[in-house]
Amino acid sequence: MKKYSIGIDYGTLSARALLIDLETGKEIAESDFVYPHAVMTDADFTGIRLLKTDAFQNPQDYLDAFSNTVKSVLKQSEITPEQVVGVGIDFTSCTVLPTKADGTPLCFLEPFKNEPQSYVKLWKHHSAESEAEAITEAAQQLGEAWLESYGGKVSSEWLFPKLLETLHKSPAVFNECDCFLEAADWLVWQLTGEEVRSSCMAGYKALWSKEMGYPSSAFWSKVDAGFGDIIGTKISEKVLPTGTKAGTINRRGAEFSGLCVGTPIAVPIIDAHSALPAAGIVDSGRLMIIAGTSSCHIVMSREDKEVKGICGRVQDGIIPGLVAYEAGQACVGDSFDWFVKNCVPASYTEEAKIKGQNIFDYITQKAEKLSVGESGILALDWWNGNRTPYANYDLTGTIIGLNVRTKPEEIFRAIIESTAFGTKAIIDLYNQNGVTISEIQAAGGISQKNAFMMQVYADVLGCPVKIAASTQAGAKGSAIFASVAGGYFDNVFDAALVIADKSVKTYYPNEENHKKYQLLYKEYRKTCEFFADNDIMKNIKLQ
Amino acid sequence: MKKYSIGIDYGTLSARALLIDLETGKEIAESDFVYPHAVMTDADFTGIRLLKTDAFQNPQDYLDAFSNTVKSVLKQSEITPEQVVGVGIDFTSCTVLPTKADGTPLCFLEPFKNEPQSYVKLWKHHSAESEAEAITEAAQQLGEAWLESYGGKVSSEWLFPKLLETLHKSPAVFNECDCFLEAADWLVWQLTGEEVRSSCMAGYKALWSKEMGYPSSAFWSKVDAGFGDIIGTKISEKVLPTGTKAGTINRRGAEFSGLCVGTPIAVPIIDAHSALPAAGIVDSGRLMIIAGTSSCHIVMSREDKEVKGICGRVQDGIIPGLVAYEAGQACVGDSFDWFVKNCVPASYTEEAKIKGQNIFDYITQKAEKLSVGESGILALDWWNGNRTPYANYDLTGTIIGLNVRTKPEEIFRAIIESTAFGTKAIIDLYNQNGVTISEIQAAGGISQKNAFMMQVYADVLGCPVKIAASTQAGAKGSAIFASVAGGYFDNVFDAALVIADKSVKTYYPNEENHKKYQLLYKEYRKTCEFFADNDIMKNIKLQ
Repeated sequence: MKKYSIGIDYGTLSARALLIDLETGKEIAESDFVYPHAVMTDADFTGIRLLKTDAFQNPQDYLDAFSNTVKSVLKQSEITPEQVVGVGIDFTSCTVLPTKADGTPLCFLEPFKNEPQSYVKLWKHHSAESEAEAITEAAQQLGEAWLESYGGKVSSEWLFPKLLETLHKSPAVFNECDCFLEAADWLVWQLTGEEVRSSCMAGYKALWSKEMGYPSSAFWSKVDAGFGDIIGTKISEKVLPTGTKAGTINRRGAEFSGLCVGTPIAVPIIDAHSALPAAGIVDSGRLMIIAGTSSCHIVMSREDKEVKGICGRVQDGIIPGLVAYEAGQACVGDSFDWFVKNCVPASYTEEAKIKGQNIFDYITQKAEKLSVGESGILALDWWNGNRTPYANYDLTGTIIGLNVRTKPEEIFRAIIESTAFGTKAIIDLYNQNGVTISEIQAAGGISQKNAFMMQVYADVLGCPVKIAASTQAGAKGSAIFASVAGGYFDNVFDAALVIADKSVKTYYPNEENHKKYQLLYKEYRKTCEFFADNDIMKNIKLQ
Repeated sequence: MKKYSIGIDYGTLSARALLIDLETGKEIAESDFVYPHAVMTDADFTGIRLLKTDAFQNPQDYLDAFSNTVKSVLKQSEITPEQVVGVGIDFTSCTVLPTKADGTPLCFLEPFKNEPQSYVKLWKHHSAESEAEAITEAAQQLGEAWLESYGGKVSSEWLFPKLLETLHKSPAVFNECDCFLEAADWLVWQLTGEEVRSSCMAGYKALWSKEMGYPSSAFWSKVDAGFGDIIGTKISEKVLPTGTKAGTINRRGAEFSGLCVGTPIAVPIIDAHSALPAAGIVDSGRLMIIAGTSSCHIVMSREDKEVKGICGRVQDGIIPGLVAYEAGQACVGDSFDWFVKNCVPASYTEEAKIKGQNIFDYITQKAEKLSVGESGILALDWWNGNRTPYANYDLTGTIIGLNVRTKPEEIFRAIIESTAFGTKAIIDLYNQNGVTISEIQAAGGISQKNAFMMQVYADVLGCPVKIAASTQAGAKGSAIFASVAGGYFDNVFDAALVIADKSVKTYYPNEENHKKYQLLYKEYRKTCEFFADNDIMKNIKLQ
């Protein structure tokens, strides 16, 4: 009887399941499910006005996504549930929610239906900025050892700032909340009855480490009196390593998915991280750029080095025995979308229509024809602030070099180039701190769709950039972990040999362009340092 | 018999004549003439490709403009030519052409018809950049005393760089050229038979001063061997002060204009400068901002002070007995136009159409609704480089503070604000160097059409901004000089009392906005200084 595993990738607006033949590694079936509630708006509440920085979701969507996609891939592939050795999940993170002791989300309870704080806070919920600052400040004052692992700064995207925000904004929700956890861990709990935490998510997003656990009660008391006893109560200390089994599907899970009771479920992993094993990266020195609306830059190393300005480093964060480092750019595709929506004139929109092109392709084609440095425009890729190396969300997008002959495609090209410069800055940072990068891969939709952008990356970085062939890197990585959790393979290395993508497209640098880009990069760095060193961008926001 | 004077304002693309009743000061008739050849293009030549920075005109248009507009105002007002006491001309400057000894433009001669260098070089002809640099460098090396009067730098817009460019690009034209002069002086010569030079134009654009004349032959020899003998030959030393008579209309001039032989013609004046007497500014400390595609900031003072970074200072440049200072912003309306043409999305264009608004009004209305500092965006007003205080044309337009929620109107507002900050920087510079500004007026089409912009100026500057009522400031100033040249008034002061605009609209500052703008201005200055102090904007232009 042939065996299969299922990986499910939970993204921001939809989930995608992939069913893999474990003998051949082939993708047999896939299924998408768009979350019906998407990201919630004022219309989902009565009389509540959400902040611009809020991003809430309804956890029912995650259950429905599991049920629908699993049933769909089983049906498409015409296999029996018994043939599925395991299921793996990767999820956006830090995407968190408050629940009762039995796992019921507070937002499912009648009294909290109109309270935003009772819902899921999506990774990009950015309303806990002051809470993040308070935690960073307390850590600096107490000299907390863990702080340097996180680039010296706690992000408002992470678990504790989001929980502290709940305490501040809705004490009722905070008091009623027995557990506060990642949506991925909650989903596994719903399917298996086991409440455990993923080491990958706890390590990157909840200040946890294998050696030291979470920050101490003394620390949390200093942050807020109401926070003194959260560890071991609202925050479970049962953290399991990635690459292992979280539990097996119980009756309820079997009923709504069509899978067999007893089917193993792997410890979930952060979506971006899942892309590494999916692309066969299970060793050190191979950087994976997961490019999307924002980008992550993940690399593993045998050595444990301090790298100031990265988002985190976690022992066994992805692959046992290796330290996984994560850095990031807060804005990549987001700035391209912003430009296309807000800055392309009607004449271009009409011309694109006549040519039957979408406006993105139309302007990309124009940008592609320009030569490096021809426009004299340089941008700073800070439309969502800067994650690495400055961890400063007061920094903002910038365009210099405009004149009255500047064309829209020149600005567009400069914005794309700026994201490549931002990536180069991250690679330089890794190399300068002893985390040596020997190879560069890219994954994520934008890396497959935007050939021009990837060529610019190769030209700016001055080395080949390989593209993973799968359009389902997250789900594929999850299917690898599922196959190990299910016991089909002994370890991730063996699983990756069969399942990971082998076929890649490679972009090679044009040496002449690379030389020019080196000149531009120097000016990019000078400009970055100027704005990072003063508060101009913060000071000009008067409200 | 009632008496009248005529002022004619020669702009970039058209000329406007105004006939004034000298008893009442009332505007009796006006007439426009659009230059048929406009700014010349490749199509005007065979096999010649002009540079992007080239801007040539055909001088026949100026003669036709004179003939047409004068005839028109005489006809409209139903007066006899004998009732015209004088004619005054103001002109864009430095707008220059090469002629034969009899005044025939070289471009009228068959052998030169296809040679761009034989035509008029318009003020905005910017192809003599390297020549301007060479002259500046030689002046620095020889320690020429005149250099500091011009802010330490010779502009490529001025007469000598344009002539040196002719020597370099067309020795044939240079050799055949007996006179090289301002189009305004050439026009007066055509009408009167007198070849004289305007002190205003020679002072601001040809390095001439009342005390020292032109730079010496020794200096010009150092610049270029072919330049050793130009003073007194190609460049006439017969410079007459503004406010006096250049000559009287001869037979030829009378024939093609319908005016009487013997009608006095005033010494011509630069168009921007003409706006001061038109608005009644004939004394010290009252700044006139002439706002258009670019802006001039002119003020007079009894004191002769060195002000580094201004465009020029000329004793008796406008009014006898006063030193006239001129500073400038290279880009004002130009950047608004650029934005509206290149950066407004189709959705806005459609919405404006539905509302029946032009796109400029539509986006202005949106920008107006924003509060100061709300967007967090700051721009540098350098789309055409910076004239004052840096005299650096490698500087470029810049926008900082962008994020993925930034709307087009936020950028548009920041660009308008940047021009107000640039104006404040100029006023600060004057005040810091002892040229005290006690009152601010604005003229030029944009000051009358764009109420939002003028309110921003008042708010940024923190003082009232008065707007001249006339839409014909240039022509009105010329009519004032015409009335003095014609002997109707004894001097410019008396003439201005009757003719100058009295009715003005005043914009008063909103104190709350002014306080916020002071914060933003501080950051504007810091950012300006950073980019002016390094070569980033120059270095990123790789071609």
